[in-house]
Amino acid sequence: MRRIRFTVAYDGTDYHGWQVQPGLETIQGTLERVFMEIEGGPVHVAGSGRTDAGVHALSQTAAVSLANPIPLENLRRAINRQLPPAIRVLTVEEAGPDFHPRHHAVSKTYEYRIFRGEVCPPHEWRYVHHYPYPLQVEQMMALAPLLEGQHDFAALAAADDRELESTVRTIFFSRLEFAGDRMTYCVTGSGFLKHMVRNIVGMLLEAGKGNLDAAGLRTFLEPGCARRAGPTAPAKGLFLMRVDYGG
Amino acid sequence: MRRIRFTVAYDGTDYHGWQVQPGLETIQGTLERVFMEIEGGPVHVAGSGRTDAGVHALSQTAAVSLANPIPLENLRRAINRQLPPAIRVLTVEEAGPDFHPRHHAVSKTYEYRIFRGEVCPPHEWRYVHHYPYPLQVEQMMALAPLLEGQHDFAALAAADDRELESTVRTIFFSRLEFAGDRMTYCVTGSGFLKHMVRNIVGMLLEAGKGNLDAAGLRTFLEPGCARRAGPTAPAKGLFLMRVDYGG
Repeated sequence: MRRIRFTVAYDGTDYHGWQVQPGLETIQGTLERVFMEIEGGPVHVAGSGRTDAGVHALSQTAAVSLANPIPLENLRRAINRQLPPAIRVLTVEEAGPDFHPRHHAVSKTYEYRIFRGEVCPPHEWRYVHHYPYPLQVEQMMALAPLLEGQHDFAALAAADDRELESTVRTIFFSRLEFAGDRMTYCVTGSGFLKHMVRNIVGMLLEAGKGNLDAAGLRTFLEPGCARRAGPTAPAKGLFLMRVDYGG
Repeated sequence: MRRIRFTVAYDGTDYHGWQVQPGLETIQGTLERVFMEIEGGPVHVAGSGRTDAGVHALSQTAAVSLANPIPLENLRRAINRQLPPAIRVLTVEEAGPDFHPRHHAVSKTYEYRIFRGEVCPPHEWRYVHHYPYPLQVEQMMALAPLLEGQHDFAALAAADDRELESTVRTIFFSRLEFAGDRMTYCVTGSGFLKHMVRNIVGMLLEAGKGNLDAAGLRTFLEPGCARRAGPTAPAKGLFLMRVDYGG
C-alpha cells in the first residue's frame, strides 16, 4: 500500500464538519466516497484534526493508504473532478508508510475573520462573522498576545473536551490585526481543544465590549480554572490556514 | 409618493437573474416582496437594467416609489433585515420624482473575472470563470482596447437583441488586466446589449487560443456584421460594478 499525504481546502458552509457522521454530508465522508471510487474498495481518510460544522480550511492536511498505482498528478485531477467545487485537493505527495497527519503535526494555524462594516458584502457572508457594533479594538489587540505561551486552556474548551487528560496547550503566536472594517485574529499553536479558537475570539470580543481586562483574562488561564470564558464565536469566521510538520 | 434611489449588491449564483419571472427566485422579485411588506401594498422596483441568471452585482442602481414616510436609514436597515444575506442594500437616498435608473444612466461598468490556476479555490468558484488552459495573454490584452469607441455590436449581442432598432453602443474603456493566476476584463460603456460583455470575453478567449487577430476582431465591429463573435462566457465571472449618472 502507498501512503499518500495531501492538502485540501474547503468551504465548510454546507457541511456538518470534517468528521464522518451517518446520514450527514461531511468533508471526510465526501473525500472517502471519492477515494473509494478510485481505489475500488474502502479507504480511510485521516485528517490532522476535526473542524466543526461551518468551519473552513484553506489548507487542511490529510492522508490515505491506496493500492492503486495511479500517478500523483492524475490522482489529484481524478479526485478534484469528482469532488464538489466546495472541496479541492491542492497538493498530493508520497509519504512514509507511517505518516499520520494528526500525530505528526507540530503546529496548526487558524484565522478568524470579523467584518465590522454596517452592511456585510453578499459575496462574503459565508466567510466572516459580521459584527457591526462598537468595539474597543486597542483593548482586544493588547490582550491577544497574552494567550501566547504554555497554559491550561480548560476555561476555553468545549464542555466535552474539559474531561481530557490534559487541557494544557502551547500557543506560539496570537495576534489581532485590523484594516478598515476587517479584523483578523491569527493564532498558531501546538494543538487546540474543541471550540478553543472560537472561544478565544468570543473572549476577545467580550474584552472589546469592555467586559474583560488583562487581569480577568489571566484568571481564565490559571491551572484548574473551573469557569468558562466568553461565548463561542460563530463557526463561519474560522479558517484552518495550515498544518505544519517538523523537518 | 417619495422616489427612493438605492444601490444594491448581490450574489447572483442562486437567482434566475434580475428580472421578475413567475415561480422563480429573482433579485427584482425578492426586493419587491420585501419593499411591499414595508409599504403594505404593491411596489415596483425599477433597475438600471437586467442582469442574467448567475451574474453578480457589487453596485446595481434601482428605485422605488413609496408612500411610507420611514426615515432613510431605518428603511435600509429594515430592508436588509428581511433580505437574504446574498442581497444587500448599500445606500438609499431621496431622488427627484422622475428619477429612472435605466433612462438616466450615462454609463455602466462591468468586470469579468477569470481564474487560470489549476485548482479553483473553493471559496471563489461561485465568482470566477475557471479557465486553467494555455492562453496568449498578450494577444488578449492588445485586442481589448480595440473595442473602445462607438461601434455596431450586433455580432456581440444575444440573438433576441439583434432585432433591436439600434445595436450601436459606445465603449469608453475596455482593458484586460492580469496578476498571477487572475485575469480581469474591465469595461465601461454607454450601455450594453444582452450577453454583450460575456460575448466580448468569449471573443477575447478565442483570441487567447490563437483563433482571432486584430483584423478578425475588426470585422465583427463592421456595421451590419451578420456573423456572431465567440461563445458566451459563463455568467458566474461577471460583476456589475457600478452605474453612473450625469451631474
